[in-house]
Amino acid sequence: MIKKQAVFAATLAALVLASSAYAQDTPVASDASVFVFNTTLFLISGMVVMFMAAGFCMLEVGLVRSKNAATICVKNIALYSIAGIMVWLFGYNLIYGVAEGGVFGTLKIWGADDADALGTGYAASADWYFQMVFVATAASIVSGTLAERVKLWPFLLFVAVLTGFIYPIQAGWVWGAGFLDARFDDFAGSTLVHSTGGWAALAGALVLGARKGKYEGGRVHPFPGSSLPLATLGTFILWLGWFGFNGGSQLALGTIDDAIAVAKIFVNTNMAACAGVVTALALTQLLYKKVDLTIVLNGAIGGLVSITAEPLQPEIYQTILIGAVGGAIVTFAVPLLDKLKIDDVVGAIPAHLFCGIWGTLIVPLSNKDVTFFGQLTGVVVIGAFVFTASMLVWLALKYSMGIRANDHDERIGLDKSELGLEAYPEFVST
Amino acid sequence: MIKKQAVFAATLAALVLASSAYAQDTPVASDASVFVFNTTLFLISGMVVMFMAAGFCMLEVGLVRSKNAATICVKNIALYSIAGIMVWLFGYNLIYGVAEGGVFGTLKIWGADDADALGTGYAASADWYFQMVFVATAASIVSGTLAERVKLWPFLLFVAVLTGFIYPIQAGWVWGAGFLDARFDDFAGSTLVHSTGGWAALAGALVLGARKGKYEGGRVHPFPGSSLPLATLGTFILWLGWFGFNGGSQLALGTIDDAIAVAKIFVNTNMAACAGVVTALALTQLLYKKVDLTIVLNGAIGGLVSITAEPLQPEIYQTILIGAVGGAIVTFAVPLLDKLKIDDVVGAIPAHLFCGIWGTLIVPLSNKDVTFFGQLTGVVVIGAFVFTASMLVWLALKYSMGIRANDHDERIGLDKSELGLEAYPEFVST
Amino acid sequence: MIKKQAVFAATLAALVLASSAYAQDTPVASDASVFVFNTTLFLISGMVVMFMAAGFCMLEVGLVRSKNAATICVKNIALYSIAGIMVWLFGYNLIYGVAEGGVFGTLKIWGADDADALGTGYAASADWYFQMVFVATAASIVSGTLAERVKLWPFLLFVAVLTGFIYPIQAGWVWGAGFLDARFDDFAGSTLVHSTGGWAALAGALVLGARKGKYEGGRVHPFPGSSLPLATLGTFILWLGWFGFNGGSQLALGTIDDAIAVAKIFVNTNMAACAGVVTALALTQLLYKKVDLTIVLNGAIGGLVSITAEPLQPEIYQTILIGAVGGAIVTFAVPLLDKLKIDDVVGAIPAHLFCGIWGTLIVPLSNKDVTFFGQLTGVVVIGAFVFTASMLVWLALKYSMGIRANDHDERIGLDKSELGLEAYPEFVST
Repeated sequence: MIKKQAVFAATLAALVLASSAYAQDTPVASDASVFVFNTTLFLISGMVVMFMAAGFCMLEVGLVRSKNAATICVKNIALYSIAGIMVWLFGYNLIYGVAEGGVFGTLKIWGADDADALGTGYAASADWYFQMVFVATAASIVSGTLAERVKLWPFLLFVAVLTGFIYPIQAGWVWGAGFLDARFDDFAGSTLVHSTGGWAALAGALVLGARKGKYEGGRVHPFPGSSLPLATLGTFILWLGWFGFNGGSQLALGTIDDAIAVAKIFVNTNMAACAGVVTALALTQLLYKKVDLTIVLNGAIGGLVSITAEPLQPEIYQTILIGAVGGAIVTFAVPLLDKLKIDDVVGAIPAHLFCGIWGTLIVPLSNKDVTFFGQLTGVVVIGAFVFTASMLVWLALKYSMGIRANDHDERIGLDKSELGLEAYPEFVST
Repeated sequence: MIKKQAVFAATLAALVLASSAYAQDTPVASDASVFVFNTTLFLISGMVVMFMAAGFCMLEVGLVRSKNAATICVKNIALYSIAGIMVWLFGYNLIYGVAEGGVFGTLKIWGADDADALGTGYAASADWYFQMVFVATAASIVSGTLAERVKLWPFLLFVAVLTGFIYPIQAGWVWGAGFLDARFDDFAGSTLVHSTGGWAALAGALVLGARKGKYEGGRVHPFPGSSLPLATLGTFILWLGWFGFNGGSQLALGTIDDAIAVAKIFVNTNMAACAGVVTALALTQLLYKKVDLTIVLNGAIGGLVSITAEPLQPEIYQTILIGAVGGAIVTFAVPLLDKLKIDDVVGAIPAHLFCGIWGTLIVPLSNKDVTFFGQLTGVVVIGAFVFTASMLVWLALKYSMGIRANDHDERIGLDKSELGLEAYPEFVST
Repeated sequence: MIKKQAVFAATLAALVLASSAYAQDTPVASDASVFVFNTTLFLISGMVVMFMAAGFCMLEVGLVRSKNAATICVKNIALYSIAGIMVWLFGYNLIYGVAEGGVFGTLKIWGADDADALGTGYAASADWYFQMVFVATAASIVSGTLAERVKLWPFLLFVAVLTGFIYPIQAGWVWGAGFLDARFDDFAGSTLVHSTGGWAALAGALVLGARKGKYEGGRVHPFPGSSLPLATLGTFILWLGWFGFNGGSQLALGTIDDAIAVAKIFVNTNMAACAGVVTALALTQLLYKKVDLTIVLNGAIGGLVSITAEPLQPEIYQTILIGAVGGAIVTFAVPLLDKLKIDDVVGAIPAHLFCGIWGTLIVPLSNKDVTFFGQLTGVVVIGAFVFTASMLVWLALKYSMGIRANDHDERIGLDKSELGLEAYPEFVST
C-alpha cells in the first residue's frame, strides 16, 4: 500500500514536472507579466494619443489666420479637458455598460474597479485613460472645421454633448458589444472616432455656414494658413500619436502573438501614411503643377484614417493601396467641398469623414471575417445617428444662444472679440 | 527505511509542486521581468520628463516678447545641460547619500553601481536618469519668472548651484530618507521639485526687480507674449511629460499592484489638469467677461502641480477638487503678484510655488497616513531653506558680477544685447 | 524493483525541483516576456526616432529664411514617406540579405516572416520599423544642408536612391554582417547613419554650390534663420529621439543585462549632449564674446552624434569628453566650412559628418575589442562609397533634370516658386 502510494506520488510528481517543463518550452509570459504588459500598452499608447491633442492644435493653429490662432488654442486645450470630465461622468459607462446586443449603456460615473482588472488582464484605470483620449480625438476633429467663425462657449457646449453622449452611445454599439458588434468591424475607429468627428463637424459646418467672403462672387477665395511650419509639426505629432491610436487598439501586448500584432500595426500605420503623403504629393503636382503642402499634410492624415479600421490584417501592398486612396480622397475632396460651399477650414471632413468611410468599407479586402454589407450597415447607422444628433444639438445651440460670431467680430478675428488678445501681438500682419 | 525515504521524498516533491502550482495561481512576474519593467518605467518616464524641458522652453518663449525669445532658448537648453553635469558631479549623492534621518548626503561623483541594481530591482543608471530630469525641471521653473531682464551667465551660475546643491540637499531630506522623511510625504514633488523651483524663482524676482515699465505710474502694464501658439504647445508638452513625472514616481511597474498604481496615477494626473483648465476657463470668463488663454494654460499647470504631491490615493472627485483649486489659485494669484509688484513673466510662482504648497497640504484628504502638521512642517522647512539659500546666491551674484541687464540692453531686448541676434529676424515687430 | 523505481522517481523529482528552485534564484524572464520586451523596445524606440523627422523639420525650418520654410516642410514629410516605401521595396533586404562577409544583400521586397520572429526573439515587423526610421534619419540630414536652393523633385529623387540603395548597401556591410563587420564597430550609427547623411549632403553641397550672395565679395554673409524658437524645439525633439536611436540599438531589453545596458546608454546619450551644449556655450562666449544659439543647438547634436558609435561602454567622464569634443568640432567647423565656401545651411556637415567620424574613431578609448585602424577602415571605406555614389547621383540629376532653382526663384524663395505659397503669408518680412 505504502509502496503504491510512493510510486503514485513519485509518478505524479514526475508527470507534473514533465508538463511543467513542456510549459516552459512553449513560451508563455507569467500572468503578472501579461497584466503589466497590457497595462503598459494602454498607458504608453494613451500618452501619445493624448499628445495628438497638441497635434490637432498645431495643425489647426497653422491653418487658420493669425487673428483666430489663440482661439484655436483655447478650444483645443478646453475640449480635451471637457472630454476628460464628460467621459468620467457619463461617457465610459455609456460605452461599456451596454448589454450584449443592446443600444444604450448605463448612466453611471466611472470608477476604477480593480477587482475587475484582474479578470480583464489590465488595470481598469489604464483602459479608462486610453478610451478617454480617443473621445477627445473625435472632438478635436470638429474644432478645425468650424474655426474662424464659431463662438467659443457654444462650441464647448457641443463638445460636452459629443464627448459625454453622442460618441459614447455609438461607440457602445460596437466596442461596448452592442447591437452592431456582431456584423461590423472597426479595429481602431475609422468610423467610431474619425467619421464620428467628421459627421459632427459636417453638421456644424452646415448650420454655421461659410466664413464671410469665402465663396463671395461665386468664386472660392483662399484664406492661407498663418503658419505652415506649425501645421506640419501638428501633422508629425498626429502621425506619432497614431502608433498609439492603432497599436494600442490591439488592447493587449503580453503574449508573443499580441506583440507581433502590435508590431504589424505599427508598420501598417506607418506605410498608410507614407502612401497618403506620396499620393498627395504626386497628385497635386500633376493637377496643379505645384505640390500643395496643406494637401500633402492632409494626405498623411487621410492615409492614417484609412488604415485605422483595420491596421492589422492587410499585407503591406494592400496597406499602401488603402493609404494611397486616402491621399487621393483628400486631394479631390478638398476642392469638392469648396464647390459645395461647405467651408471646412482645415480639411477635416475629407481626411476624417471621407477617409473614415473608405477605410471602413475596404476592411473586407484583408479581413475575410468581415462583409462589405456589414461594414456599410455600420457606416450608415452610425453616420445617420451622429449626423442627426449633432445637427439637433447645433440647431438647438443656434436658436438658443447663437453659435456664430457676428460679422464685425469675424472680421477683426475671434482672438480679439472672444479673448481680447492677439496670438502674435508683435508681428505685423498684411 | 528505503520505503519511508521514498514516501518522504515523493511527498515532499508533491508538496513543493503543490505550492509551486499555488504560486502560479497568484500571478507574480519573474524577478527578471520585474527588474526590466521597473527599469523601463524609469526610462520611458524619464524621456517624457526630459521633453518637459522643451515644454518649458516653448511656454516661456511664447510668453516673452520676441526680443527676448532666443535668450529663453539658450537658457533652457543650457540649464538642462548644466543640471545633467551638476547632478552627476554632486547632486545625486547629495540626495541619496544621506544617512537615515540625516541632513546632508555625500560629496561624491555618481557612478552606476550595477551590483546595487540587482538589489534595488532596477538599473542604477535608469534611476539616475529619472532623478536628473527632475532636477532640471526645478531649474526650468526659475527661468520663466526671471525672463526678459536677467543676464545669461549669472542665471546659469545660479542654475549650477540650484541643481548641484540646493535642490539635492532638500530632496535628500525626504527622498534620500533624511530627517523629514518620517513625517512628510511628497509623492512626486509638489514641494521638492515645484515649490523648490518656485521659491528659487521668487527669491530671484525679489532681488532682480520688475521689468522696466511693468509697474510704471502705479498701474500694471501688460507685456503680451509674442506667440501664444508656442506657449500652448509648451503646455501640452508639459502635460504629456507629467504622466512620466507622476507615473514614474511610483518607482516600480513590475507587479500587478504597481501597474494598477501607475495607471491610477495617470488618470489622476490627467483629471487634475482637466479640472485646472475648466476652472481657469470659467473663472476668467466670470471675472473678466473673456477667457484668458495664458491663465487657462497656467490652470493646466496649476492642476498638475497640485496633484503631484499625492497622485495615487485620491478618488477622482477629490482629484478634480484638488486640480480645480489649483486652477483657481493661478487665476487669483497672477493679478495678486502684480499687486505686490513681483514681476513673474510666465506665472511660474502661482503655478509651481502656490499650487505646490496647496497640493502638499491637501495630501491628508486622501492619504490617512499623512498629517496636515507634518505636511506643513515640510513645506515650511524646505521653503525656508530653499528661499534663504537662493536669496543668498542671488545676492552674492548681484553684488559680484551683477545679475540684471542694463536699461539699454533690456529695452533693445536680451537677444540683441546678450546674443547679438534676433529670434525672428525677418518678422517686423510693432 | 518497484521500490527502487519509486526512490529513483522521487529522487529525480526532488532533483529537478531543486534545479528549478535554483533557476528561480537566478532571475530569468520567461521566453515570452523576453520576446515582448525586445519587441516593445523596438516599437517605442522607433516611435521617438520617427518623431526625429519632426525634429529635423523644425530645426531646418527655423534655420532657413521664411521664404523657404514651407519647402522644408514638404521635403521633410516627403523624405520620410519615400524612405518608408524604398526601405520596404529595396532597402531592408539589401541590408540584411547580405551573406556573412559579403557585399550586397538581395533585391527582394520585405515581408514580415513571423516564423523567423520566434527565432530572433522579437517581432520581425518591429525590427523593420526600427530600421526604417533610421534610414529616414540619414535622409533628413541631407535636407538641411541643401536648403534654400535645391529643387524639390530632384531632391526627392536623390532621397529615393539614398534610402533605397546607398544607405542600405553600406549598412549591410556592418549591420548586415557584411565584409566590414568583423573589424569595424558602430553601435548605433555615427558612421552608418550620420556620416552617411553627411557625406551625401557634402556631395550635394559641392554639386549644388552656395546660395546666391552667401560668399559675395569674398566675405561670408550671414543669412539668419527665421525662427530660432522652432530650431530650438527641433533640437529638443532630436535629443528626445536620440534615446530611442541609441537605446533601441541595444536591440534587446528582455534580460537584466540588457535593461542595464539600455539604461547606461540613456545616461551616456544624455551626458554627451549636455557636454556638447556646455562646450559650445563656453567656446562661443570665449571666441565671439557672445553665446551663439545656433552653434549651441548644433553642439547638442554634435555631442549626440559623437556618442552614437559607442554609447554603452564609456565611463561618464569619457562620455563627457567625447561629447565635449563634438561640441568643439561643431563650433570650429561651422566657420571652417564657410571659409571653404561650402554652404551648409543648418550646419549638418559638422554635426553629422565630422562628429560622426570623431565618434567612430574614438570608440577604442572605451571599447577594447575595437581597434583604431579597424574604425578608420570603416570610416574611409563607407565614406568613399557614400560620397562617390552620392556625387554620381547628384551629377546625374544635375545634367538631366537640373537640381538648382534659378536665380529668380532662389531670390523670391522656393516657397513661392516651387509651391506657389508662403509659409507665413501674414507676417511682414524685412
